[in-house]
Amino acid sequence: MIHVKTNIKRPDPALVAKLGEFSSATIHEAQGRRGALDSTIKPVDRSMSFCGPAVTVVCAPRDNLMLQVAIHYAQAGDVVVVSAGDYPEAGTFGDVLGNAMKAKGLAGMVTDSGVRDTADLIELGLPVFSKSVCIKGTVKETLGPINHTIVMGGQIIEPGDVVRGDADGVVLVKADEVAEVIEACAAREASEVELRKKYWEGHTTIELCALTEKLKAKGLLVEE
Amino acid sequence: MIHVKTNIKRPDPALVAKLGEFSSATIHEAQGRRGALDSTIKPVDRSMSFCGPAVTVVCAPRDNLMLQVAIHYAQAGDVVVVSAGDYPEAGTFGDVLGNAMKAKGLAGMVTDSGVRDTADLIELGLPVFSKSVCIKGTVKETLGPINHTIVMGGQIIEPGDVVRGDADGVVLVKADEVAEVIEACAAREASEVELRKKYWEGHTTIELCALTEKLKAKGLLVEE
Amino acid sequence: MIHVKTNIKRPDPALVAKLGEFSSATIHEAQGRRGALDSTIKPVDRSMSFCGPAVTVVCAPRDNLMLQVAIHYAQAGDVVVVSAGDYPEAGTFGDVLGNAMKAKGLAGMVTDSGVRDTADLIELGLPVFSKSVCIKGTVKETLGPINHTIVMGGQIIEPGDVVRGDADGVVLVKADEVAEVIEACAAREASEVELRKKYWEGHTTIELCALTEKLKAKGLLVEE
Amino acid sequence: MIHVKTNIKRPDPALVAKLGEFSSATIHEAQGRRGALDSTIKPVDRSMSFCGPAVTVVCAPRDNLMLQVAIHYAQAGDVVVVSAGDYPEAGTFGDVLGNAMKAKGLAGMVTDSGVRDTADLIELGLPVFSKSVCIKGTVKETLGPINHTIVMGGQIIEPGDVVRGDADGVVLVKADEVAEVIEACAAREASEVELRKKYWEGHTTIELCALTEKLKAKGLLVEE
Amino acid sequence: MIHVKTNIKRPDPALVAKLGEFSSATIHEAQGRRGALDSTIKPVDRSMSFCGPAVTVVCAPRDNLMLQVAIHYAQAGDVVVVSAGDYPEAGTFGDVLGNAMKAKGLAGMVTDSGVRDTADLIELGLPVFSKSVCIKGTVKETLGPINHTIVMGGQIIEPGDVVRGDADGVVLVKADEVAEVIEACAAREASEVELRKKYWEGHTTIELCALTEKLKAKGLLVEE
Amino acid sequence: MIHVKTNIKRPDPALVAKLGEFSSATIHEAQGRRGALDSTIKPVDRSMSFCGPAVTVVCAPRDNLMLQVAIHYAQAGDVVVVSAGDYPEAGTFGDVLGNAMKAKGLAGMVTDSGVRDTADLIELGLPVFSKSVCIKGTVKETLGPINHTIVMGGQIIEPGDVVRGDADGVVLVKADEVAEVIEACAAREASEVELRKKYWEGHTTIELCALTEKLKAKGLLVEE
Repeated sequence: MIHVKTNIKRPDPALVAKLGEFSSATIHEAQGRRGALDSTIKPVDRSMSFCGPAVTVVCAPRDNLMLQVAIHYAQAGDVVVVSAGDYPEAGTFGDVLGNAMKAKGLAGMVTDSGVRDTADLIELGLPVFSKSVCIKGTVKETLGPINHTIVMGGQIIEPGDVVRGDADGVVLVKADEVAEVIEACAAREASEVELRKKYWEGHTTIELCALTEKLKAKGLLVEE
Repeated sequence: MIHVKTNIKRPDPALVAKLGEFSSATIHEAQGRRGALDSTIKPVDRSMSFCGPAVTVVCAPRDNLMLQVAIHYAQAGDVVVVSAGDYPEAGTFGDVLGNAMKAKGLAGMVTDSGVRDTADLIELGLPVFSKSVCIKGTVKETLGPINHTIVMGGQIIEPGDVVRGDADGVVLVKADEVAEVIEACAAREASEVELRKKYWEGHTTIELCALTEKLKAKGLLVEE
Repeated sequence: MIHVKTNIKRPDPALVAKLGEFSSATIHEAQGRRGALDSTIKPVDRSMSFCGPAVTVVCAPRDNLMLQVAIHYAQAGDVVVVSAGDYPEAGTFGDVLGNAMKAKGLAGMVTDSGVRDTADLIELGLPVFSKSVCIKGTVKETLGPINHTIVMGGQIIEPGDVVRGDADGVVLVKADEVAEVIEACAAREASEVELRKKYWEGHTTIELCALTEKLKAKGLLVEE
Repeated sequence: MIHVKTNIKRPDPALVAKLGEFSSATIHEAQGRRGALDSTIKPVDRSMSFCGPAVTVVCAPRDNLMLQVAIHYAQAGDVVVVSAGDYPEAGTFGDVLGNAMKAKGLAGMVTDSGVRDTADLIELGLPVFSKSVCIKGTVKETLGPINHTIVMGGQIIEPGDVVRGDADGVVLVKADEVAEVIEACAAREASEVELRKKYWEGHTTIELCALTEKLKAKGLLVEE
Repeated sequence: MIHVKTNIKRPDPALVAKLGEFSSATIHEAQGRRGALDSTIKPVDRSMSFCGPAVTVVCAPRDNLMLQVAIHYAQAGDVVVVSAGDYPEAGTFGDVLGNAMKAKGLAGMVTDSGVRDTADLIELGLPVFSKSVCIKGTVKETLGPINHTIVMGGQIIEPGDVVRGDADGVVLVKADEVAEVIEACAAREASEVELRKKYWEGHTTIELCALTEKLKAKGLLVEE
Repeated sequence: MIHVKTNIKRPDPALVAKLGEFSSATIHEAQGRRGALDSTIKPVDRSMSFCGPAVTVVCAPRDNLMLQVAIHYAQAGDVVVVSAGDYPEAGTFGDVLGNAMKAKGLAGMVTDSGVRDTADLIELGLPVFSKSVCIKGTVKETLGPINHTIVMGGQIIEPGDVVRGDADGVVLVKADEVAEVIEACAAREASEVELRKKYWEGHTTIELCALTEKLKAKGLLVEE
């Protein structure tokens, strides 16, 4: 088996940047409630945010050998997506590799294991999303695939898919759907601006969500 | 079954406001260590705080139909208490409904599921307490009760009971006990002010908690 | 059984202070990836930090009698390490005992149960690390050991061992290894400064971690 | 507060016995999908089964004082329902108290904590349902309510409500609804016998569940 | 989107039957430690065992509409693989649908949610693997995909992939690798028979696993 | 550091055998409610039972190299106690190594990770206790200590300490306390025989546990 695939197809950076203007929740809804990673994968700090094509890597639990290899092959703007056995009791990543990533212009990092040196990572300004914050170190022993299709956080992730992370978590957009998702996001945002305005004008949920007929059909009984 | 009860009895708003001057932990202790919801229900941000009568609603997991109905029937000052199947992998609520609640002057929202658009909710200034932050959207399919007695976070909650949330979590006060709990809180706070002062004057825990006799009776052995 | 041992040996305070200049992750790595408590034990606020000799105490779950006794016998600079049954649904500790600790000059507190009054504790400036934030009160009923060898967070902790906590969690250094760990930390930090610099100069992970030979030996296959 | 209420109203034993002929899942469905305790509460052995009026008791976690009092006041046929802090790391109950219960003719025991001496309990033939099997002993220190309304496993349980446990878990029937639930169970069982027969005759799920119209209305698309 | 794909490719039944002669652990090892679903997915009874091509279906949590549709389109020998939101507090499946499956000759069923009527399912002889046993009923409201690629238990599952379950759990073999995996299993079993024999002849682990050189190279120090 | 200590002191086998006549719960109580491992460590089958001196070993998560070494150095009658990172998603051990252990006459095996080939292990008659049953294989890469003091399941375990496992879980007896614990167990069993008899003669819990005075002192209020 080839471990490292180097020729992955990345979407147009302009589209990726445009997608990054929408929130993870908006993207998830706009593409039909798809693509959200498990909610246990969280930013180290609420202000962290990224949007970029995924470089995928599978590490053994408590082993970051392949993460180091992945950083070598990643390009500016990429997000390194590290499946590491869904094991929170390891700090797969810290501020030294964080500097390696930041120096290369990588856009961020997501993992289903832990990270450490979080104070330094925040200061460094590298967006890092993980399942835990954990001091415990890792070994560098086990080979694994880079830029193969992987599963992380309950989602199938292919290299080049776009991952978008913000305060609410991480969502995935398939590489060939970015343009249409952007349009759907814009439409959704516009309608939400309108909705918010109407709520402040005094309209109600039942009215604005057009629930009257639906509730009647379902047989809602309200106390007189 | 009537789904929606509209005529709930709310305690005197002046009493509710007064209760809100005490912390959740003080209230819990003052009423005899009762009423605390499970500690897994947390504010989206530590600065969030509410105190108001509960409007109770049961949603199916991953379904917020009845939450939308509940917002319609809730009044300014109410806290919407949403039992939604103890399911963290759904964002039952986000910033559009947040605006709907804020525009009506609702005091806050608590749920045993997830919420999303947390950055917007913080900016909006609506106190939101939940089990998780989750991007994943919900459907609007299933009827359920509003303003019935429910269980959430391990507590029995009746509509009109007062819920108080702050950085430590959420506590419940039965509607007809608010006045006496306020008195007990005031007494407890006064005694705590005194205790804190005495600690800074150099008194010790064993002395101030009157433990000497108790420890002797229990047979504590201290190395000479 | 003697419950309370009072004559524990504490390392030289100058060494403890020196150790506290290094992060928990650096200490863990420098001493051979040992001593990290479970990652579920976290600071109440990310800015909290302590370093001090451990006063160990075992409380029954939902019972803080022995914590009160432990504060009585602890000295300025000590960290009170409270094993309380790995039970998150109890607030073993709050701001009144926090004032008692702060007034005595204690360095901090760690527990595998919950704490409360977190807003006050943050304002007070006492570093507190716990498994949860929980409103629920405790009783004062059960005797237990103070300054015996205990297990907490998966580590064996002897009284006088040094515990160091920061944003990433808590690590333990055996009392008689503090001096050598400080040296190892200093060496590690120096090498990391160098590494970070080299990354910003454009060197890569495979190069700086000397992985080329290792990966070849393991049979890494890279797509041409 | 009165701790122990002794005069609870129990449903007609003949009705209780009749209800016990239906499975927990059938009862849950027949009464409109209500009353199921959390699925984490399981029988010690799959063959265990009970049906009886609840004697409710709240113990502190790791404290079985009130369970001993509850056994004293329980009557033949009763099920002792023990809320004990949702704490799995305590064996609230073992074979000695099991003999006490069996000797009195009690019908069974349910708890959200742990039990021990499970081999003996199985041999004894006492149905015991719990959250865990745990060796760890308990103290006898803390008073609590007996035959008050309690919450356990996410359900509100009043003394005299009927609890039914079998291999699938535990379900609750309100005392005044037993007769009508029995009727609904019988109807449901009859229809299920019919359904099972029809499946073996070759009818299909879409046909027997009358899904054709429903799926069409929802817009199901099937590959041609 | 087409919801239901009906034309899936199933591997040769003779190969599937042959694969089913090997245990899940042997298959996992023989194909290079791949394909094991999360260990939290367990048989209802240890004696349950299946091997068959996957019919994949995604249900909403607490909603089994699409499972009913999937049974309709499944064929004798198939295993129905039901991703249902990783939600243990729902009994997605019970003995009526179990009879529907058994009557059609389906080989078994796996889900990341709960099942109920377990005593009946055992008697029926249908192999059922799930995350929990749960009484709680489901609705029939939400459309979802059948025979699309899905994620369950951390694995990517395509329709027609072979799933093999036994006492240890469930493993997946890609449809086009079945023949070679059978060969690898046979080779592994042969070598294990040999190993077991040698252990009983008195050979040791270090000898049989050829660890002497490896341990020396790694620097193992043994007390003299 | 010496990795493998070979000269451990084992208690008198006659005493170990005698201790094994008592249940884990009895031993735990008889030695003052000490020594119980976390209740999440369970036998693969309820009928499994062992009692023997501990050979302690620390494996990296998902790595069983040192377990193989430990089996080499263990002696007939020993129990191999394997701390492996508290990681359930690995099958550290299966039937081949099971045969290696059984052939050497080892008494059993305990781990905080997973095991596999459980059907074979049950047939083999080797008592195996673990945190999970998991198919996933392990590597053989990482050195670790054998017969050092370790932490597992929340207990400090020294080589030569006696571990006793049965249907309820595992308990630890310090090597130099075995004789006195046996005496305490015998006394406790005798008193329990008496208690059981008295319950069947009609005595009550309050009477036999001498609770009348205690409950009065605590202020128990019973409804008249």
